[in-house]
Amino acid sequence: MFWAVPHDNRPIGVFDSGIGGLTVLRALRSRLPRESMIYLGDTARLPYGTKSEETVQRYARQAAGALLHRGVKLLVIACNTASAFALDHLRMACSPVPVVGVIQPGAKAAAVASRSGRIGVLCTEATARSGAYETAIRSFRPAATVTSIACPLLVSFAEEGWTDGPVPEAVVRRYLEPVLHRADSPDCFVLGCTHFPLLKAAIQNVAGPAWPLIDSGAHAADSIMALLEESGLSASETAVPRTRFLVTDGPERFARLASECFGSQVDEVEQVDLREQPVVEAMVAPAA
Amino acid sequence: MFWAVPHDNRPIGVFDSGIGGLTVLRALRSRLPRESMIYLGDTARLPYGTKSEETVQRYARQAAGALLHRGVKLLVIACNTASAFALDHLRMACSPVPVVGVIQPGAKAAAVASRSGRIGVLCTEATARSGAYETAIRSFRPAATVTSIACPLLVSFAEEGWTDGPVPEAVVRRYLEPVLHRADSPDCFVLGCTHFPLLKAAIQNVAGPAWPLIDSGAHAADSIMALLEESGLSASETAVPRTRFLVTDGPERFARLASECFGSQVDEVEQVDLREQPVVEAMVAPAA
Repeated sequence: MFWAVPHDNRPIGVFDSGIGGLTVLRALRSRLPRESMIYLGDTARLPYGTKSEETVQRYARQAAGALLHRGVKLLVIACNTASAFALDHLRMACSPVPVVGVIQPGAKAAAVASRSGRIGVLCTEATARSGAYETAIRSFRPAATVTSIACPLLVSFAEEGWTDGPVPEAVVRRYLEPVLHRADSPDCFVLGCTHFPLLKAAIQNVAGPAWPLIDSGAHAADSIMALLEESGLSASETAVPRTRFLVTDGPERFARLASECFGSQVDEVEQVDLREQPVVEAMVAPAA
Repeated sequence: MFWAVPHDNRPIGVFDSGIGGLTVLRALRSRLPRESMIYLGDTARLPYGTKSEETVQRYARQAAGALLHRGVKLLVIACNTASAFALDHLRMACSPVPVVGVIQPGAKAAAVASRSGRIGVLCTEATARSGAYETAIRSFRPAATVTSIACPLLVSFAEEGWTDGPVPEAVVRRYLEPVLHRADSPDCFVLGCTHFPLLKAAIQNVAGPAWPLIDSGAHAADSIMALLEESGLSASETAVPRTRFLVTDGPERFARLASECFGSQVDEVEQVDLREQPVVEAMVAPAA
């Protein structure tokens, strides 16, 4: 049948330091209901956002190795910190399997959304230190001025599930006020950590209702949808999708949090040991 | 010289998931100014307080192995979570090197301090789940009623250095109010995480000025001082003490935080790889 659209029913691999990337997985599942997915959360070593470049790169190589080993057709780095430190390296190491991070899509959307070119990025300590958003935003808009703001407590509030009311807003205010009251304040903020969409309402209340808030994970999901279509990697219309979860710490806590996130029982959770995992350099990427 | 007091100039090993144990190290240094110490912070894998028993035990065995390998005369588990899950195991595995955790000393002090026998324990999720404080307190006071309260956000506020004012107090109130207003409310609280002494003023403001707050780390330091004297393990009067630091993530961030904690420059910080570390079972404890 010469008119058949090429398709590929292998799963998409999504990896994150822990549970934050579930917001990206959720965005992917709503856009790509026929795709199978394997989500890997490195829960025994989370969070990545306070750790060094070298350590995050090592962890990311091990996670990518575990997912390639399971035959994924595409690798999504759902964690902003890992995207900041390990994207270029994993792109080379995983070829021909494409690798998508969350920073480029978020940066592009912010470069378009900002009127003044002054953009704030709310992120982890490590992402702020990396300068990855500055570099990415300037690649789309060279005259942009980018202010990265490390907001470690917002990660903790999101994990606690305490996302609205005066206390979360006071914490948001602590991080935003020094920039909001500058003469050259940004006119939009990137939510540059997968946990921060959970605090969107609190951030919007502090910044003001008109402020654009860019969700990097949602923009990454849009990019991935386009990439699958362009490259003939989409699942067939008859595919029966399956979502599996791999974690490095015990599965119980993860299954509970993931079930809350998806509003339905998550039970396919398997514990894996990434220390036993050959790092991605030593892998041969599976044939397409 | 038959009257010579026995002494031992080998260092004391102190291990923690990261930086919280520096409060215990500080208490030890002020009580034991002649003792050399090696502090190991597992900064590449912190925090332990949200992780499973099995994972915390594995990490603790590796950390103990690294310190025994460096010839410590005594091992202090400064982390409450690791004390809860790994103390008994490490005591057997490290013999004849004595191992001291922070839970027994804190539990004993609380059993003495409480009038009513109703004791609250502020701790991590994992320590609460372990039931270790309940067991330890009841071993000193069998009729005690123990309420463990997991306070994960307090760890984050301590790490952020945001320890007083209305927002930290609002967070403390969230955790304490449900127990403070019960008819059978506790009459003292144990600070059952090494980070919590940093928030003592905020906790005191919420609980009320008369409430006893038991600092497990300070009581552990008292126990260690007594143990060294009783067992002839104290350093000689002419010993030249040295404090060294081992970390599993990059040393820069740790050196900065430790320098703030001690009010003087900390520079002997070495990065170690615990994955390469034989777990403590495989070690022969060095001769005394």
